[in-house]
This record gives sequence, C-alpha cells and structure tokens, in this order.
Amino acid sequence: MATPPQPQILRPASYVYGQWHTNKDGQTLLDAVYGRPVAVISSEGVDFAQALAYGREKGAALRKLTFHTRARMLRALATYLMERKESYYALNALTGATRRDGWVDIEGGIGTLFAYSSMARRELPDERFLPDGKVETLGKGGTFVARHLLVPREGVAVQINAYNFPIWGMLEKFAPSFIAGMPTLVKPAPQTAYLAERMVRDIVASGILPEGALQLVTGEPGDLLDHLEEQDMLAFTGSAATANKLRVHPNIVARAVPFSIEADSLNASVLGLTVKPEDPEFALFVKEVAREMTGKAGQKCTAIRRPLVPRHMVDAVVEALKKELGKVTVGDPARDDVRMGALVSVEQRQRVRETLEKLGQEAEVVIGGESDLLGGDREKGAFLDPTVLLCRDPLTAKGPHELEAFGPVATLMPYDTLDDAIKLAKMGRGSLAASVITHDRAEATELVLGIASTHGRVLVLNRDDAGESTGHGSPLPQLLHGGPGRAGGGAEMAGLAGVRHHMNKVAVQADPTTLAAMTREHIPGAEVREDVIHPFRKTFDQIQPGDSLLTHRRTVTEADIVNFAALTGDHFYAHVDDIGAREGIFGKRVAHGYFLISAAAGQFVSPAPGPVLANYGLENLRFVEPVGIGDTIRTRLTCKRKIRKDLRPGEERPTGVVEWHAEIRNQDEVLVATYDILTLVERGRDGFDPVEDAEGGRQMAEGESAKA
Amino acid sequence: MATPPQPQILRPASYVYGQWHTNKDGQTLLDAVYGRPVAVISSEGVDFAQALAYGREKGAALRKLTFHTRARMLRALATYLMERKESYYALNALTGATRRDGWVDIEGGIGTLFAYSSMARRELPDERFLPDGKVETLGKGGTFVARHLLVPREGVAVQINAYNFPIWGMLEKFAPSFIAGMPTLVKPAPQTAYLAERMVRDIVASGILPEGALQLVTGEPGDLLDHLEEQDMLAFTGSAATANKLRVHPNIVARAVPFSIEADSLNASVLGLTVKPEDPEFALFVKEVAREMTGKAGQKCTAIRRPLVPRHMVDAVVEALKKELGKVTVGDPARDDVRMGALVSVEQRQRVRETLEKLGQEAEVVIGGESDLLGGDREKGAFLDPTVLLCRDPLTAKGPHELEAFGPVATLMPYDTLDDAIKLAKMGRGSLAASVITHDRAEATELVLGIASTHGRVLVLNRDDAGESTGHGSPLPQLLHGGPGRAGGGAEMAGLAGVRHHMNKVAVQADPTTLAAMTREHIPGAEVREDVIHPFRKTFDQIQPGDSLLTHRRTVTEADIVNFAALTGDHFYAHVDDIGAREGIFGKRVAHGYFLISAAAGQFVSPAPGPVLANYGLENLRFVEPVGIGDTIRTRLTCKRKIRKDLRPGEERPTGVVEWHAEIRNQDEVLVATYDILTLVERGRDGFDPVEDAEGGRQMAEGESAKA
Repeated sequence: MATPPQPQILRPASYVYGQWHTNKDGQTLLDAVYGRPVAVISSEGVDFAQALAYGREKGAALRKLTFHTRARMLRALATYLMERKESYYALNALTGATRRDGWVDIEGGIGTLFAYSSMARRELPDERFLPDGKVETLGKGGTFVARHLLVPREGVAVQINAYNFPIWGMLEKFAPSFIAGMPTLVKPAPQTAYLAERMVRDIVASGILPEGALQLVTGEPGDLLDHLEEQDMLAFTGSAATANKLRVHPNIVARAVPFSIEADSLNASVLGLTVKPEDPEFALFVKEVAREMTGKAGQKCTAIRRPLVPRHMVDAVVEALKKELGKVTVGDPARDDVRMGALVSVEQRQRVRETLEKLGQEAEVVIGGESDLLGGDREKGAFLDPTVLLCRDPLTAKGPHELEAFGPVATLMPYDTLDDAIKLAKMGRGSLAASVITHDRAEATELVLGIASTHGRVLVLNRDDAGESTGHGSPLPQLLHGGPGRAGGGAEMAGLAGVRHHMNKVAVQADPTTLAAMTREHIPGAEVREDVIHPFRKTFDQIQPGDSLLTHRRTVTEADIVNFAALTGDHFYAHVDDIGAREGIFGKRVAHGYFLISAAAGQFVSPAPGPVLANYGLENLRFVEPVGIGDTIRTRLTCKRKIRKDLRPGEERPTGVVEWHAEIRNQDEVLVATYDILTLVERGRDGFDPVEDAEGGRQMAEGESAKA
Repeated sequence: MATPPQPQILRPASYVYGQWHTNKDGQTLLDAVYGRPVAVISSEGVDFAQALAYGREKGAALRKLTFHTRARMLRALATYLMERKESYYALNALTGATRRDGWVDIEGGIGTLFAYSSMARRELPDERFLPDGKVETLGKGGTFVARHLLVPREGVAVQINAYNFPIWGMLEKFAPSFIAGMPTLVKPAPQTAYLAERMVRDIVASGILPEGALQLVTGEPGDLLDHLEEQDMLAFTGSAATANKLRVHPNIVARAVPFSIEADSLNASVLGLTVKPEDPEFALFVKEVAREMTGKAGQKCTAIRRPLVPRHMVDAVVEALKKELGKVTVGDPARDDVRMGALVSVEQRQRVRETLEKLGQEAEVVIGGESDLLGGDREKGAFLDPTVLLCRDPLTAKGPHELEAFGPVATLMPYDTLDDAIKLAKMGRGSLAASVITHDRAEATELVLGIASTHGRVLVLNRDDAGESTGHGSPLPQLLHGGPGRAGGGAEMAGLAGVRHHMNKVAVQADPTTLAAMTREHIPGAEVREDVIHPFRKTFDQIQPGDSLLTHRRTVTEADIVNFAALTGDHFYAHVDDIGAREGIFGKRVAHGYFLISAAAGQFVSPAPGPVLANYGLENLRFVEPVGIGDTIRTRLTCKRKIRKDLRPGEERPTGVVEWHAEIRNQDEVLVATYDILTLVERGRDGFDPVEDAEGGRQMAEGESAKA
C-alpha cells in the first residue's frame, strides 16, 4: 500500500481574550505514523495575565446563569459537536490512534458533555448556587439554624492536559467546571494540540457558550502559573515528575491555588484464586489485559500495567495472552484492518524502550518482537509491538511497581495468596483503577475492600456483568477518576462531585426566615404566608416557598381505624387487636400511619381540576407520635421549594415540581407526622422552550458582561 | 493582691509507640501572666519513623472496629475527660486564658467528641466502610452497576497545632479522624503543649482507646515530615508563612501526602447599611466586635479583624466600642473579676506590637492605651489592652487586609455601598469566618452571597437569632471550619465531611449481586432470597439484606377508590370525577397513590405480634404509573439494609432499624410504585450493652493487633 499524500501542515492557534492568536513560526510536530510534519505551534505573544484577567471578568456573567441554563448550553454544544465529529476523526489517525481509540477520545468526550448536562438538570436546582446537605438546628428554640451553600469560585479553571486524550481530557474537565459556573483555560499537550484546537474552533464558531467560558493556549504555558490567584484552580494530567514541579511553584503555594493532579498509575488487574482455566472469567481476564495493553497503543493512565495471576496459572495466562495479542494487527491506524496504531511520537517510543530496559532488570520479556506493519513507517512512525514481561518475585521487586512504560506494555506478576495479591496491588502506592476478575463474591469482596484505600476505581468483572461492562480502563462521568498517592490525589468527575469541586463551600448561620429567603427554600421555623387562595390553586409561577395552608381538624375514630383496616387489608395487631396492642409498644390501638397521611391529603387537597396535576412522590416521612382513638389531627402544608423542569420529548404541558412540607399535629399541637410531598404543577405561561431559554441565557450573559 | 506562689515546673512528655518518653532538659516555657518558668519540653530522642510505623501498624486494628464502636469509645472518652475538666482549667490560666476562654478550649473540645460520637451513631451505618451516594446503573440491562465507597486511609493523621487552643485544636481534628478509623499523632505548639499533654495523660490512663489511636509529640517535630507516606495525612493550623514552607517539603510533595491547612484570616464583620443606631442590630454589632476582639485576648483565627461600617456610622461605632471595651478588665485570668487575660507570651506580644506599628502606616489608633492591671505582671506578663484602629481609605489600603495582628486588635473600615463592603471583605483574599449584622433579609442575602466564594463560614446576626447565636468566632462540629485562599484552603469538621476527609473514595463497579454482598445492602437487580418464614417474623439479627417476599395479588376496583375517598376525605378529581379525570393527565379515574401503598401494606404485613414493632417512616416514594379500575397489583418487599441502634435512655427493648425496599407492579409486571420502608425490629438476643460493646471492641482491636 502506498504512503498517503502529505497532508497540509496545520497552524493551530490560541484563543485568548476573545481573539484568535496565531504565530508563523513555532515548534514543528510530526505525525505519529509516517513521521511527517503535521503542525506548527507556538504560544509566543500570548499575554497570560490578560487571558486570566479576561476569564475572571467574564466569569461574572457566567455565574449569573443558572445550573439548568448552563446545562442546556452544554447539551446544545454537545449536539453541535457530535454533528461535526468526522472532522475530529480526520485528525485522529495522525496522532497514531485508531478509530476505536478516537471514539473514546472524541465521542467519549462529547458524551461527557451530554452526561453532565443531564446530571445537572436532573440533580441540581435551577439556581446559581447549591444548598448542600441538611439544615442544622443550632439552638433549642429553633431561632438559629445553618446550612452549607456551594457557590462558584470566582476565578479561572486552568487545565494542563496530557497528549493521549486531547478531546476527552479537555471536555471531562470543562463540563463540571462550566456547570459550576467557572470559566476554563485549556493548555493541551503540544503533541496533539491540533486536535483540541480543531474542536475549540467549532466551539467558538457555534456561539453557544458565553464569551470567556473557554480559552485555549496552544503551545508552551509561558508565565501562566505566575498569574494564578486564590480563586483560580489548576488541574494537571501528566507525569508525577512534572506534577511535583508544579506543586512547589512559588505562586501556587503563596496563593493556595487548589491544584488537582492525575499522574502516574501502575494499575493492577487481579485474576481471582478461585478462577479455573475453563471458567469464563479466565477468558475475560486475558481479553481485558490484551485490550487494555493495546487500546490507544497502551498510552492510557488507566491501562493495566500489572496483571496479577495465581502462580499456578502463569503459564496458562502467558499462553492465552500470546494467542490474544497475536490477533492485534499493527500499522497505519487509518486502515480498517489495523487494531493498534502508533505511539504519539518516536521520542515517546524511545522513552518506553528505555523503561523496558530498566524493567528488564527485574522481569523477563515473555511476549514481544516485531510483527509486519500494515501501513505506516517502521522507522519514522512510532510503532511498538505489545510487550509482556514476567516478574517472578514481585514482592521484592521495585521497578515493576514504579516505572510506568507508557505504551503497550504490561508486567505479569504471580501471587500465592489473596493477602499477597492485595499487597502487590498496593505496592503501586496509589492507582487510578484496578480490576478483580472472579465470580466468587467473597473473593471479590476481600480483594476490593483490601485494595480500596489505594485506588480510585475498582472493577469486578465476571460472567454476570461482562456483557455490559465498560472495561477496566474506562473512566465514566458518574464515577471518580483519580487516585491517591502516586496517582496524584486528584478527584475528577464522580458525577456532581466534579461540579462541587469547582465551588466554594460556605456555612451560613442565620435565623430560619433569613436562611429560607436566601436559599428560596422553606425551612421549619421560618415565617409562612397564608393566603385566601388555596396553594393548590396557584400555578408553578405563582406559588412561592413559604406559601402555607393550615387545614381544618379531624377527630380520628375507632370506625376510621376499622374501616381503613377493612379497606386496605392491613390488620396489623397495633391497629385492630386490642390485646396485642395493649402489650405492644404503644400500649393501645393506634391509627395506621398510612391512614394519617391519607386523611391529611383529605384535609389539604383542593378537589377540582387546577394547576396541581399529581402527587407523584413523597420523601422523609416520619411517624413521630402515635395517634389513638379520639385524637384530633390537623395538617399544615407549606411550599418548601420549586424545581423547574424541562419539557421532555412528547410532553405537552409545561410543568414544574413543587415540593411541599407537611406536618400533622394532634390536639395538643404535638407533631405526629412530618413529610415532604412532590407534586407536578402547571406553569403559568403558555410554555417555555428550553433551547430558547438557553439562547436567552447566553444573550443575558453577554448583555451583563457588556455592562460590566 | 500578692503574686501567687511559683507553681511546680511541669515536664510534659511525648507519648509514642505505646510509651511515655521524657527528657530532663529542653526548652523552658514561661507562663503568660507572671513570666515565670512553667514547663520544660523537648522531643529529643523520639524516633519519628518508629512512631509513624507504629501508628500505621496499629491502624489495622482500629479499622476492624465499626463506626458505631468507635463512636461509643469517643463518648466514653468524652465522659471520662469531662469528669476531669478541672485539672485542665488549673493549667489554663497559666496560658493567659480566662475560665471563659478555657471553656471554649476545654469543654468546647470535649463537646466536639460528644458531637462526633452522636453524629456517627445517628448518620453512619454500623460498618467499617461507608457506601457513598446512590447506586449508578451503568448498563441498560441492569447487570452492571457501580457505587462509591469510602474506606479509612491506611496511614496516620498527623496534626501540627497552634498554641491558642491546645485542647480543642487537638480534639476537633482527632474526633473525625478516629471515627473514620485513622490513628492520630498530635504535635501541639510548644507554648501551651503542657495543657494538651495533661489531657493526653488522662486519655492514655483511661484505656478507652485502642493502642496507637493517639500519639503525642511534645517539643520540636524533628524529621517527622520526612517519614510521611502516601496513606498518611497532615493537618496544620498556624501561620501562612509556616504553612507554605511545609507545603513544599520534598517528601510531602513526592508522596502526594494530603495536606490540610488552616492559616491566616483577616475576618470581616459587616454592619448593614440599613441598620440605624437605635436598632438592636447596632448594639449587637458593637458587642460582637468587642467580644471577638477580647476573647482569648484576640488570639483566635476566627476573631473579627476588620469591622466594616457604613461611613456615616463610624463615629457612633467608635463611641460605642470605646464604652464596651472600657468594661473589659485586664489582668491575671485566674481572677474572677478579670475579663481578658494575657497573650501567650511576651514574644507574641512583641509580634503584635510590630504588626500594630505596620498597620499604623495606613490606619490610626482610635481606641487604645493601658488600663490598670488586676493581677499579673505588666512587664513579664504578656498583657496588651484592646486596640482599635481606623483605616479611612480601606479600598486602597494594603496592610489592614494582609497583616494579622494576632491579639486584641481590630481595624475599623468605613464603606459607602454594599458592593464596596463586599469588595472589602474579599480583599482578605480568603477568610475563615465573616458576619453580617442586619435585620434586612434582602441586604443579608446580597452580602452573604456576595462574599460566599471567599469565606468558609458566614453568620447573619440580628434580633431574631441573637438569643441563640453562638457568635461570629465559634466553629461548630456540624459546620465547616476552614476557608479558601489565604485561610489555607482547609476544610475541618463540617459534620461527617470531616470524617469523609480521612477516608479514600473508591468507585466500585460490579454486577448487582456482588455489589450488594460487598456493601451488605440490597440493590435493585441483585438476587433475592425467598423463605418459608415471613420476613416480618424474623428478628433483627435473623433478617438479612436480600430476604424477600412476593405477595398475593389484589385487583383494584371502583369500590376501592370510592371507599378510600369517602374514608379519607380525599376527593381529588383524578380519583372521583369522571369528567375531570378524562381531561386530566391520566385520561381516566385512577386509584389514590396512598391507597396503593396502604393496600401494599395489607399485602405484606404479618398481622400477629412479632419482631417488627412499627413502621416509623418511608423514603424515596415514587408513583411511577397510574393504577386504574380493574388493574391488579402485587408487591415485592425486600430487606434493603439493617441499621443497628443503641438503646436510648428509657428504652427497654433492644431494637434495630430494618429498611425494606418495596415495589408494587401491575398485571403486566409494570412498576407502579417504588419506595423504602423504615421499621423498628426487635433484636434476637436479650439485649446489648453499648458500653460492653465498646469494651469488647477495644479488646478485639487489641487482640487483633497482638496477632498482627
């Protein structure tokens, strides 16, 4: 097959303070497959202080948008980018990556935007800040309460990324930061910066994000770190050596800039002691190791570097791995018949070879060599065939637990007992991911809990979950990506924890009415408003937290209890058996708890059709005191908070969720039951279009920032 | 009054690797009031590597205890120490502190142990690790799920403390770390180390804690930091200058040791623009500033350093403050008539005087001078009278926002608009605490949200909460203590967040049955066990997560709906009005949601008296699909998890909480409602004694560690 024609040389630019900044000269990057010039990059002339100041200034407008508005922008952006994905795939092969590798980077990255958009709309309020945790009552009289709030940090989230996932690495950090309300400045690794830049061009062109939400520096970081301030943040993905240099940067130290690191990780995968060669778990283990070694040519922070194998299984595993890795075709990743492409550069290959040499002092190569290339240049391209080493005495070895050969390399390690397997996994001194392959639940539990303190994520793989498993090496937006110790101690994604990470937590102490006003959420003890209009007759837009109804009274009779038991079939002795009930904890027959909340609904419901469409749920129900025959109950219903909802596909009526706090008290004003009711309530206006809302939000943000 | 007799010179020791370590010689400390020798301290000869190794080794036994066992130990310890509090008060005055100051340190510290014990027993499971957040379903088929777990870090939590609160500073860090399962090593500040040591003597003598749970280094830290490892942690309270030196310590950097800092903080207190001199808030502000300036002679990280006052109110505030501070008697803090004692040392007074001089460049002293001492030595004691400065141009000043005079000193700053007040508060570049004194809720909201991103805690003080307010400067166990930027970025206490801080978070991915087995909590999709014995007939000890009951069926009839409406009084149109219901969201009359859960109880309840005593609550109820006339429902009830409970005072029967997951499905197996039921269930054995349990736990821990 002929070498493809030399592609046009790219000139990726920086996007700072609302402008594209290009340089004629700079560092020339070579493609990974043929070693020909692919791009020239330089950040020469970028004013980093100005870029950060610009981001901070524009942050004010971003913080004025609500979580939901930001989330809708993220969804619109994700849709926009997904439509253009082929233009990213077109550059992907130049980095040495196959289309499958690119899928993780490109569609995995865009998928993270979708995931954060949806988590934010589902789990966050439509507000600019986040009340966090429960209301703490600090005084017996209930006049002094507190709650934690999370508010966006008023700085710029700076990313310094690794070369291996130029798209995903940028978007998985950007998504939570944007939802939180923090602008981002991305500094991709030079080797693959042209791919990140290609996407940022589309992001800017889309006009979907508010000005300043995303800046890009292509090239060297210059004096960027000298200009970070207390409210900025820094996230770094790369080697521990570089991370540790950044950690002691005088300005980062002096300004206590939060610094999140995702660094080296020698991830283990443990084949369980109980697994036999004929078990499906044996094949799963071999497949997983091979897949993790060769995906992205092994240039994954989460790849399996240390497969741990019961000693008596070592030969069988080597044999099976040899067969599995034999299927891995190596060559030009643009070709369909190629399973593994090249490392990112020949320099990177040289580093891996040097590390292999060092590993050779305590381990021997059991699988290696050079296969026939399917396209690509063996000399100028950065190809390296999968290499498996075997370290026979891993408990005393050092290198295999410390040296990360960032390529298609793994070191097999035999173990004798589960305790030894745990010890070996921990010898990585902190890792991003591990996996445990076994169908024995006790073994899985022992291994997982044994290594949990030194890992950020552990996968249990077996015949039950293999069909749906996303694999050892795949970080997911919902789950933590990061690990303690050598892995850097970072904590990316993990669902909304990633958003919270970009916010400041503050404890607010106040009287209940002030705290309720501040958080727009009713708090027990806060003043309520009673109105001639029944709260169920108000639309979502009319109702306000604190709107309250105190119902008429009802005396609970023996007939009520008997009838309720008859109707529901619930003949529990505490309600219907006078003898049992006397000996029971209440000492007498009491009303069914469910009767109380049903009768309370009878007290507060407004029967005719109105804006309240349905009671679809209930939370925090506690039966505090029993209600006996002759007791009289009365209910207070208070609007607790409102949660705006997007129209779902197929839904016709725009609605919102109104959460009500209900308290049932007896004739002595003693609380007998307390709970929160979730209702679906019609909005007041004709409807609202989420897309239009996002657009409006953007305009508002820009208007605000123009004003600022 | 005569000078009290010279007390005996103390020789506080270190408690490391299970031994008391003393030195004859060392640094001689002088008391704060008369400047006479009070103690000789030295850590000479302590083997720090051995101390850390010992702590790590003993940690294994501590981690084998459950949260509740640790919590009961903490309560027993708190009770033990409270009985001995007078021996701590006896040393307290030597540090310059009044009894009131000592109360914050001593009883505040012991109170923190009680608070953590009670939070842990109330809010944590009786387990060794903590399932965190919800179960994430990662595949459509439900065979692949994930959950985050928190497990104790397997190292030592090292504290380096400040001199001002030797007891509280130790216990507020120790309590969450101990609950989490991490042993602690305390290095108190030398000046007041003898007070911390006095308490540690009692802690060790009590024998309540497992071996190795608490070590103490009295004296210099030597090469302690060189021996920290990845699983250890470091917490520091003190100056930003020292913190920044520790931050770049090569070993801390190389091993990515989590490092929590609580450092300088120039806390603001804002008198609202709306407050008039005759409002109660004016007096509250003046009292609060005076109290915060003089409490602990102003040596509090959270003290008010920058009172922000509307410009037109400055004269009135100075006048009122002068009057209020005039009541502050200064002298020997052992005397009842003394309101403010001495700084910790004459060196510290010298530092404050130097800072006052620097502050003088941009501010003038408006309240100061020297009052008559009530006891104590003016020369050799470290006395300093309250000093108030006024900075007329605070928006352009630098020193008053940067220089922390750690004594009874504050700098008044006038402001013109709320925006300026916010700007001024933020010029502290990150603070531990602020307060906002106003009764205007809009003003409070604007100020609090305006400064939230740069503060760890904000108090709104007004006539409504003043009676119960704990004050501007009081950290509380439930609330965050820490602040961003200059305050160091630390995050202490904050309730269970402080416990979580000492644990590693790991995402575990598995099939539902394995994850359920690991977490001892039933998960939808996990295998269930059906038994001939009805689950309600099993005791707390017999029932197991996954035990399940599938009920008989019931067809819902029009009569059911009509009868339910009649009985409860809930005549909502969706149930009883054929015309309205047809036009409503369901298109037909449907059963009341509360009827469904009541009928489900009728299906699964076992009526005769048995171990299940009461259904006391319900969570996560969602009505998923409507149930119409003629639909047939069936319920599955599965034990979700068990929560052990301590006997409360007055309670006779030992019980536990069993949480059940209920799912109601219709004839098409479609889910119509899902919820969790909380029941109180009798334990299987005669009873259990929490104290005995704690004792047993300790013995177990020691047995285990003896084995190790």
